[in-house]
This record gives sequence, C-alpha cells and structure tokens, in this order.
Amino acid sequence: MSGKLYIIPIPISETDPKKVLSEYTINTANRLRFFVVEKIKTSRQFLRKIDKSFPIDESVFYELNKHNQYAFEDEVIQKLLQGNDVGLMSESGYPGIADPGSGVVKKAHQKNINVVSLIGPSSIFLALATSGLNGQGFVFNGYLPKTESERIKKIKSLNQQVKQNDFAQIFIETPYRNQAMFNDLIKHSFDETLLTIAEDITGKQEWIKTKPIKEWRKQKKLLPKIPCVFILGC
Amino acid sequence: MSGKLYIIPIPISETDPKKVLSEYTINTANRLRFFVVEKIKTSRQFLRKIDKSFPIDESVFYELNKHNQYAFEDEVIQKLLQGNDVGLMSESGYPGIADPGSGVVKKAHQKNINVVSLIGPSSIFLALATSGLNGQGFVFNGYLPKTESERIKKIKSLNQQVKQNDFAQIFIETPYRNQAMFNDLIKHSFDETLLTIAEDITGKQEWIKTKPIKEWRKQKKLLPKIPCVFILGC
Repeated sequence: MSGKLYIIPIPISETDPKKVLSEYTINTANRLRFFVVEKIKTSRQFLRKIDKSFPIDESVFYELNKHNQYAFEDEVIQKLLQGNDVGLMSESGYPGIADPGSGVVKKAHQKNINVVSLIGPSSIFLALATSGLNGQGFVFNGYLPKTESERIKKIKSLNQQVKQNDFAQIFIETPYRNQAMFNDLIKHSFDETLLTIAEDITGKQEWIKTKPIKEWRKQKKLLPKIPCVFILGC
Repeated sequence: MSGKLYIIPIPISETDPKKVLSEYTINTANRLRFFVVEKIKTSRQFLRKIDKSFPIDESVFYELNKHNQYAFEDEVIQKLLQGNDVGLMSESGYPGIADPGSGVVKKAHQKNINVVSLIGPSSIFLALATSGLNGQGFVFNGYLPKTESERIKKIKSLNQQVKQNDFAQIFIETPYRNQAMFNDLIKHSFDETLLTIAEDITGKQEWIKTKPIKEWRKQKKLLPKIPCVFILGC
C-alpha cells in the first residue's frame, strides 16, 4: 500500500509554530522521515523548532528547486509507492500555493497516491479573511507584471474587473518593490476602489488595513520591505 | 483603545478541534466573551467542545443572518470601540469566505479597528493545496448558476479559461446537487481538463482526487451528499 503525501504548511512569520500550526500538523511533521522541500537548510531549522530532538540525520530530504529542475520528483514518487509517508514543505505558508511544490502533488495523483493537506497559515487566505472584501468570489493573480507599462495596464484592468463583478483581486509583490506597487496602485485606481494592504501577517509587525483609494492617497504610507499581500475590491 | 475583531475559523468536518485549529486559535476563542456568529446554537456547541467549562451564560452572542439583515453589526462595532475584543465565527471554515461575515469586518476597517485572523481550515484552500493544480493563479467562483443552461454555459466558459491562462477554477455546490454537477462536468468539459473532487476535507471520509475528465468519464463516480469542492485546471 502506498504512503501518503502530506502537505505541511510552514509559519509565514517569525512566530511560535503553535500560534499558526495545529497540534496535529506539528505531530504529523514530527513523525515523518522523508521530506520534499524547497530548501533543506530552512526545513531542518523548522523541524528542530517543533522538536529539539528531531532526528535530522535519520531523515531524507529532497530539495526541489529551479536549479535541479525538480529531478527528484520521480524518486519521491517511488518512496511513496514503496509505502513511505512523505512531507512536502516550502519556505513559507502552503507548498504549491504561490510557492513551488504542485508538480510532485500532480504526479502523486497520477499514481493514485493519497495527498493530505495539514492546517497552517496562508498569507493570501488570511489577508482575504481579514480584508472584509468579497470572499464569495475572488482571484489570486500571483505577481503583477514587472515592466511599468504592463503593471499599470494590469492595475487598471483589475479596477475594471472589480467594478464589473465585485470579485476581490489578490496579488503579491517582492518586498523591495512594495512601495513602488503602492504608489502605482493609488495613482492608477478608481477613487472608490477598496485596497487592502496586509503586512507581516501573523507576525509581530502585523498590520492590515482596508480603505478606499482616495483615503490611501491622503496619507503618505511607507511600506516596509517585508512580505505584503495586496487586495483590490469594492 | 478599541478592541480587536478576531476571525475564528471553525472545523469543517466532524473532527477534533486540535486536528485543525492551532493552540493559539483555541486559546483566543476561549478567552473571548463577545461573539458575532452565523448561528448561536452551533457556536455555543463549538465553544463547549474546545472547553467543557466555557462560560456560555456570561458571554454575549450576536447572530448575523439573512433574517435580521445584519442588524447587530453596528452594535458589535460599538462593543469593539468600547474596548472589547470580539470573535467572529461562521458555521464552518472561515467567516467571510464562502460564508457570511465580511460585512462586520468591512465596518471594523471603516472605524480603524484592528482585525486579526486566526488559523484554521478552509475547504477551498485545502482542496487547492491538495489538488496539484495551479496555485500561482486561481479563481474562486463560489456557486455556479442553478439553471441547467446557465450552468453548462459556465462550465464551458471555465474550461476555455483554464486553457487560456491555466488558472485553477474553484467552485462549490450544495451537497444534494453534487452528483448533477459531476455529471454536467464530465459531459461538458474538454477531455484533457483536470478535475479535482475534494470530499469531506479533514473528515473521516476525506477523499481527494485529481484526474483528467476523460478518466473521470470511465468510472461511474458516485458523489456523497456531503460538502465537496470542485476544481478545474490543467
């Protein structure tokens, strides 16, 4: 009988794992010895954090990243088919959501291997829940285009879409570009569009506000260079 | 100083709260005495489940539902402005996401009240994480149209969208219509479109599979009348 592939969410801020992971999530991660990870070093640190005596040296880590072109995926599937449970972890939040990991999950489904998701934090989802914006219909857009003209075009298009069907439009940005994103958003959005900015969710500097664009324009908001989620809505 | 509005996710299946809620979520719910809820009866049951001696009679519950037109929202905001922390709970999963609750969150932001989301299960998000489908870009569509012709039109349109931009297209259905939805999906989707069916997530009957439509057609899948999440992707 095949093992199970466990999707293990990781804390998204500097915080006690017990704040953001269920006891069952922590216990399950603790009993696994095979892991598919984004980076071995931080995954080991996480396991030591949930259990100081975690047997790192008796565990096997497969690092999935762009450099090895996910070469280990097939080996992981073999381990699962041989009956071993395997944990999948990214650097932050849910693997496979705005993070690598979905490739190995897809392959697991192809082999009829059971995939189980454990409970933990997702910055996208927590930002939406906290925003007060439309949770009956929403879009996660990932990153907006990098080139200025394309980004502005996209911001304008998202504003139009919000007006048309009221779906919340969620997106993220690399931290050092947060301020530029904010400046573009207040410049190229409708006065009445609501903008949520969610900084350092679950962390010590957590700061989440929803206001109309015209109010954001009045204050010179300085965005820190830390992970942020942006949402447009109505 | 204002109190905080805590978004409290609730277990989405018959399961031990410790499996799906973090210790901090349970402890926070346990110390609150003001609650905005979808149904008072089940919210009381939940609080008794996390703590047998929870002081229900010393707590105040505001029931937000269609019948009272959210009349209590302003009273809740007053309680918050007076410095009381308040918990927001729906019947299952995250309030405000495919569930009522976002109205009071929006009003809290208007009054500059801090909103904090605690960690727990979301069937939408867990289904996506477990599906292996695209988590870099996705849409939650809520319920598809009820009338057959409109629903079929929507299914065809979602298939086209998946082909165009590869975003995962997530939707839900009322349990007694699961089978009809499945039958429509396999009839009106492209052979190669991937369909995820996620039943009873986190529950004892949890069953989550991703297969191409052409494979789903080969088996006469019978869907139980329990909460399901459907995802189309590629």
